[in-house]
Amino acid sequence: MIFKEFDRIVFTGDSVTDAGCQKPVGEGLFDSLGNGYVREIENLLVACYPDLKLRITNTGVSGNTSRDLLKRFDDAVINLNPDWVSICIGINDVWRQFDVPAIPESAVQPEEYRKNVEEMILRIKNELNVKGIFLCTPYYMEPNKDDWMRAKMDEYTAICKELAEKHNLILVDFQAMYEKYLKYRHSASIAWDRVHPNRMGAVMMAKEILNHCDFDYNREF
Amino acid sequence: MIFKEFDRIVFTGDSVTDAGCQKPVGEGLFDSLGNGYVREIENLLVACYPDLKLRITNTGVSGNTSRDLLKRFDDAVINLNPDWVSICIGINDVWRQFDVPAIPESAVQPEEYRKNVEEMILRIKNELNVKGIFLCTPYYMEPNKDDWMRAKMDEYTAICKELAEKHNLILVDFQAMYEKYLKYRHSASIAWDRVHPNRMGAVMMAKEILNHCDFDYNREF
Amino acid sequence: MIFKEFDRIVFTGDSVTDAGCQKPVGEGLFDSLGNGYVREIENLLVACYPDLKLRITNTGVSGNTSRDLLKRFDDAVINLNPDWVSICIGINDVWRQFDVPAIPESAVQPEEYRKNVEEMILRIKNELNVKGIFLCTPYYMEPNKDDWMRAKMDEYTAICKELAEKHNLILVDFQAMYEKYLKYRHSASIAWDRVHPNRMGAVMMAKEILNHCDFDYNREF
Amino acid sequence: MIFKEFDRIVFTGDSVTDAGCQKPVGEGLFDSLGNGYVREIENLLVACYPDLKLRITNTGVSGNTSRDLLKRFDDAVINLNPDWVSICIGINDVWRQFDVPAIPESAVQPEEYRKNVEEMILRIKNELNVKGIFLCTPYYMEPNKDDWMRAKMDEYTAICKELAEKHNLILVDFQAMYEKYLKYRHSASIAWDRVHPNRMGAVMMAKEILNHCDFDYNREF
Amino acid sequence: MIFKEFDRIVFTGDSVTDAGCQKPVGEGLFDSLGNGYVREIENLLVACYPDLKLRITNTGVSGNTSRDLLKRFDDAVINLNPDWVSICIGINDVWRQFDVPAIPESAVQPEEYRKNVEEMILRIKNELNVKGIFLCTPYYMEPNKDDWMRAKMDEYTAICKELAEKHNLILVDFQAMYEKYLKYRHSASIAWDRVHPNRMGAVMMAKEILNHCDFDYNREF
Amino acid sequence: MIFKEFDRIVFTGDSVTDAGCQKPVGEGLFDSLGNGYVREIENLLVACYPDLKLRITNTGVSGNTSRDLLKRFDDAVINLNPDWVSICIGINDVWRQFDVPAIPESAVQPEEYRKNVEEMILRIKNELNVKGIFLCTPYYMEPNKDDWMRAKMDEYTAICKELAEKHNLILVDFQAMYEKYLKYRHSASIAWDRVHPNRMGAVMMAKEILNHCDFDYNREF
Amino acid sequence: MIFKEFDRIVFTGDSVTDAGCQKPVGEGLFDSLGNGYVREIENLLVACYPDLKLRITNTGVSGNTSRDLLKRFDDAVINLNPDWVSICIGINDVWRQFDVPAIPESAVQPEEYRKNVEEMILRIKNELNVKGIFLCTPYYMEPNKDDWMRAKMDEYTAICKELAEKHNLILVDFQAMYEKYLKYRHSASIAWDRVHPNRMGAVMMAKEILNHCDFDYNREF
Amino acid sequence: MIFKEFDRIVFTGDSVTDAGCQKPVGEGLFDSLGNGYVREIENLLVACYPDLKLRITNTGVSGNTSRDLLKRFDDAVINLNPDWVSICIGINDVWRQFDVPAIPESAVQPEEYRKNVEEMILRIKNELNVKGIFLCTPYYMEPNKDDWMRAKMDEYTAICKELAEKHNLILVDFQAMYEKYLKYRHSASIAWDRVHPNRMGAVMMAKEILNHCDFDYNREF
Repeated sequence: MIFKEFDRIVFTGDSVTDAGCQKPVGEGLFDSLGNGYVREIENLLVACYPDLKLRITNTGVSGNTSRDLLKRFDDAVINLNPDWVSICIGINDVWRQFDVPAIPESAVQPEEYRKNVEEMILRIKNELNVKGIFLCTPYYMEPNKDDWMRAKMDEYTAICKELAEKHNLILVDFQAMYEKYLKYRHSASIAWDRVHPNRMGAVMMAKEILNHCDFDYNREF
Repeated sequence: MIFKEFDRIVFTGDSVTDAGCQKPVGEGLFDSLGNGYVREIENLLVACYPDLKLRITNTGVSGNTSRDLLKRFDDAVINLNPDWVSICIGINDVWRQFDVPAIPESAVQPEEYRKNVEEMILRIKNELNVKGIFLCTPYYMEPNKDDWMRAKMDEYTAICKELAEKHNLILVDFQAMYEKYLKYRHSASIAWDRVHPNRMGAVMMAKEILNHCDFDYNREF
Repeated sequence: MIFKEFDRIVFTGDSVTDAGCQKPVGEGLFDSLGNGYVREIENLLVACYPDLKLRITNTGVSGNTSRDLLKRFDDAVINLNPDWVSICIGINDVWRQFDVPAIPESAVQPEEYRKNVEEMILRIKNELNVKGIFLCTPYYMEPNKDDWMRAKMDEYTAICKELAEKHNLILVDFQAMYEKYLKYRHSASIAWDRVHPNRMGAVMMAKEILNHCDFDYNREF
Repeated sequence: MIFKEFDRIVFTGDSVTDAGCQKPVGEGLFDSLGNGYVREIENLLVACYPDLKLRITNTGVSGNTSRDLLKRFDDAVINLNPDWVSICIGINDVWRQFDVPAIPESAVQPEEYRKNVEEMILRIKNELNVKGIFLCTPYYMEPNKDDWMRAKMDEYTAICKELAEKHNLILVDFQAMYEKYLKYRHSASIAWDRVHPNRMGAVMMAKEILNHCDFDYNREF
Repeated sequence: MIFKEFDRIVFTGDSVTDAGCQKPVGEGLFDSLGNGYVREIENLLVACYPDLKLRITNTGVSGNTSRDLLKRFDDAVINLNPDWVSICIGINDVWRQFDVPAIPESAVQPEEYRKNVEEMILRIKNELNVKGIFLCTPYYMEPNKDDWMRAKMDEYTAICKELAEKHNLILVDFQAMYEKYLKYRHSASIAWDRVHPNRMGAVMMAKEILNHCDFDYNREF
Repeated sequence: MIFKEFDRIVFTGDSVTDAGCQKPVGEGLFDSLGNGYVREIENLLVACYPDLKLRITNTGVSGNTSRDLLKRFDDAVINLNPDWVSICIGINDVWRQFDVPAIPESAVQPEEYRKNVEEMILRIKNELNVKGIFLCTPYYMEPNKDDWMRAKMDEYTAICKELAEKHNLILVDFQAMYEKYLKYRHSASIAWDRVHPNRMGAVMMAKEILNHCDFDYNREF
Repeated sequence: MIFKEFDRIVFTGDSVTDAGCQKPVGEGLFDSLGNGYVREIENLLVACYPDLKLRITNTGVSGNTSRDLLKRFDDAVINLNPDWVSICIGINDVWRQFDVPAIPESAVQPEEYRKNVEEMILRIKNELNVKGIFLCTPYYMEPNKDDWMRAKMDEYTAICKELAEKHNLILVDFQAMYEKYLKYRHSASIAWDRVHPNRMGAVMMAKEILNHCDFDYNREF
Repeated sequence: MIFKEFDRIVFTGDSVTDAGCQKPVGEGLFDSLGNGYVREIENLLVACYPDLKLRITNTGVSGNTSRDLLKRFDDAVINLNPDWVSICIGINDVWRQFDVPAIPESAVQPEEYRKNVEEMILRIKNELNVKGIFLCTPYYMEPNKDDWMRAKMDEYTAICKELAEKHNLILVDFQAMYEKYLKYRHSASIAWDRVHPNRMGAVMMAKEILNHCDFDYNREF
């Protein structure tokens, strides 16, 4: 597996990452990691690699856009000195365009999104010495590509892909993952609002990230 | 307007009607009518026709399918001796097929739905002496007719239309109403789960019903 | 209608406006607008004009007199840079004279009220570039003009009328509106204390404001 | 004073009497008497006559009309075997006519009120051996006799007066008492809804009852 | 009566005065005066003298000794500019000697008590222009003068009497009042801990203060 | 020590025994024994005799008089088939005479108390095969024997002593124990109401019972 | 995989299975499956086999011994007509021997345990037509085989193994699984009490069961 | 006994000492001492030596390691000017090594532990004038010395013993005490997590400390 003893992996983002994690930094005992995919990642890491001590940290904050995350990037990532960083941001950048269309400054347009995320990437690269960066696409659990919000989200996903390639990051394509799932089940089975996954969705997301980590589910120890 | 002094209008259905109304019968003081379209109907009736005493009753129950509503139809409608009845049922009949697909008996298939609703209509016609029956279509705030749940819901809506015509009911086509709205705004602006409207949606639904009632918003009194 | 795409309309006042809105500024998702007439105004605007994006903002604060509102007028109105402003203040200026008569400084006498409201109007006119100002009269849901509190309130209402005419504002006469209603129903049907309307009263107030806006309830879209 | 050692005095009625008393019978330790005039009566009795043991019992139930009270009269009065009974009922008989005018059976019309109260009186006289009966008028803290609810309440007050005279009861005229008070202060100072007194009103009511009891506030002991 | 229109009477002290009043200053609407004797004083003043506007203010703080009260005397009394002041302090000065005997600095010995109370009196006399000062004795609802706490409390009561005479104050002897009561009933009937009165005790205390005010319970208005 | 492996000791009584224990039978895990002397007895038994399994059961019920306890004696004692029984009852028999003197049937007079307790003793002797019975005196933490409630309580204590001697029971004289304590500290240090001990008092009571059991605090194991 | 479309798998047992599941039968929407290994099993099944509809049912009840489970076996298993049954019982049978040693009837001895579990197996075999039975061993997360509770638990585990072999069941050896884990991490990392796993432990248990099901974590769909 | 009139004894440490005590300093009325061994120490002191006033103070803070306690040592000990100090620290220093092994800085290694505790001792000796210092060993209620956490804890216990001898402190060996207990009962009977004692364990710890104090349980007074 790509993670090594005592590696610290910081996951940051919005409510999908947050999922009720401890503030300002979620890690350690009890429910500190929240109830989402970060929780399930540590579950699987410990269940399959109990001999490996890995420090999982969650700094997601509910409601964040890329603009909000960039503002708190020192606290969310830089000052924690991680070995790995995973960013999943952009859903609120899009969502606010559709649920409160009359308040345009609550949303973030694609060009600002690109600038915000790229600045995060450059700050990590310039100020930290990390082993790898996961860039997770925002997503909308909507199979219809003509849906306004899905169509808009696809613009942001495309930006993630460009940035991942340009900066040589590990791209985690949550949108593609959900698309496969939605061929078999309706989104109502994993999320009431097509955004916040229930725990089945959280496991799917955890697995999608671990798929990029040479993770072995059937490892003997 | 079609309603006359002291008419009693009973609205029944599932959580969309219920919206937190008093149990077993919601009417009278305080929050007894709940927080949904029934509340907004009384608001508009009293605001525009304060000189007319109309008794609005809500017997919606959250989670009900047409099978559940039929079982409690004595308490929900018959024993209340209404002058008008409004039924809005079917969303859960469909939803359970998609959110818990492994538990088939929690859902209701189209043929049973038709039978259930028709039995309700016949019971009203046979056992009561009402001035009119509103049959409201179930709906899914999804503009894409190929969405599995929307497509399935359309089958139930079609059944409502047939039954309304066959039995000479007042058809309230909530699906068509939301369809018009969705041409301008995304469903995220009125419902997180494309089913339960926020208060803007509740007013839209109230207006849709009153549109069939010769209701005058600008009436002088 | 008088409102145009992306207009921001700020409603401010006391508990009748507040109605549990988000602090310090109520707008956007969930229950941010509170549970009163501002909520119902947005409901009707969105239900009838979904194609028009209008930003509704609520800065009412429970218990405010005109003196309190003037003190926080930067935060309540000026800094928000609205296109339209609606002010409904004065009820507590009067009420405190009757419910705690031994604490005179908790109330505001008519001359100070006139000065306070006029200063608000002038600040809007001088510091902002608005399209219109709604001045809503305070009211007491009491048909008897000899009632002490109603009689006193009428002095404040008269001041509003003078100021509206002098400064060319849109006068919303809530007192006259409730007076018409009270010809048909007792105040007990819409407010326990003759001040705080239930949701039927909230719709009445919303309609009264929209009556000055070329609002079309039956508009096709 | 008219009460003697170990006399039991049962007060019954609606929410004004109830005021949060213990159910089904309020008496004894802690807050069992509620927070209204019955509480203040015991306060004054014990403060001025500590040498006299008097058993004060409260069986008021919030929301009761005379019809409701008559139905539970065995539990509320007869089975308690009191030496004195005080009845204060009728406010809800009237109120329901104005706050939910479309639900007529929730109110009680004057003729039924007369019948209900007279049956209570006769049951006490026939089935118990009491030393005296207090009949307290319902009231509305509204000085304007043309107010619809006040005018209607006056019909019920008049019935109380007739019945008190006919059956030789102690009439406690709460309406007259509040009328005197309202010459000096607005109702807003003692009740938000002109019905439920705050604690100042509760003391006024207690004093009004004790005025018929040869009660001495300045008694030395 | 000794109080005149718009007089402000400030009551201060410990938990017996506090009784849950609003902080930092209890007065005005709702439960701001707490649930003790100050509440009952306003009740009786308004019930008997509704034509007289009197401002009742409560600044008691639970747990205060005379040392604590002296420290906050600016906020508790001086800055409020009262016309009358009533002080009831000393119970905790004594109580702490008996319930936590191992923490001597939590109590206040008699000589410090005398100094503290006299400084309060002098501050009122020097810095305010009051019409009168009520000095209420601390008390212990214990008839046995040999009880350690009662015996100690009597020392503090004696100091109050000396100070009242020396400075020409209105002495309210709560200890003597309770002593009379305890000839007829056990302390268990008004206070579980022989200190905090239930509402019957609160009325007794209110009456004891009003006895020094030419208060007329049977006044016609 | 007098208790042997697997002995079951049932403690019953009023709130002093109850102290929040599990209902209907307090024993086993967590807080099932409540927070009073029964809890402290098990604490000391386990701390000093961990090698001995003793089953401690608490069936005290708050507010019980001897009359109440006798009525539920099957559930409280007989059906539990104990090896030892400890009864501590009588405080409420007396207290109700003083805190609610106007409701005489809520108290129990001495002759009935004697009869009730003796019937409990005889039922144990006749229906069970116990190794011993502890009869604990009721008490009032009041050193002054002329205090009305203490004087009355002494009558009940005397009855306990007679019955203990007559039936050869183990008498636990809580009144004498508290009397010794009150020579050194005021009752305010262990109970606000002179009845319900804080946890220091609970340990004193536990020790008093264990003093009759050949209990060795310094035992080596 | 061994499970086929629409198979119903019922998991029953004690608090480890229960984990806060819905009562009386946990399945379907929201948190109905609780927060333990059953939840994680459905998570993994849906994440890897979304094309397969499997009905997962949880009837665990906190605190159950094998005796308790046998008593409710109709409701817990038989009446649900499952295709597969998984039983995990026995921990409380052992635990009660150590945490409340003085109450022997709260525990279940090995011979009764064998009898209880075998009766469950036979009932399933005789009354249902299942495709397979999982028998999960009880466990104690304690690596030291000389620990009293571990040693005792091993007797129960041995019985499970015998019964699984005799009746040809799928044996899930949780004790062996935890033993492997405890070679690398201390039990404090997954359970405070060595019994109730945190969510990492829940995933380990889910994986252990799925290991017997030809489950493919990396399956493409 | 070694404690003299008015001695102040400060107990500090982690959650075992804290047990819900008042912050920042636990002493005096009500539940200020928490629910653990400090509470039981005062209970026994007052029950056996009521004639002796001893001030018991608790400054334990849940979750503290020796590093945390050293940081707050001014507030926890020095500024309180105690006559005796009791320190029980180290459990979290060890525990964090096992429950969150991937976050090494949350734990404290032996050499730092030695340094931290010795600095506490020296500060007491240099800055205060105490009569004695109790150094209580950390412990783990685990009889198996090969258990990782027990083995590690033994290193810290050994350090305590060295420091106690070197600095002439009163060593309280909780580990040895629990070891004796665990010969007779399983740890499950006093602590679910082998660290936090229930109230039986709290009494055992209190007794262990008092064993070093010439405490006489059977003293007559």
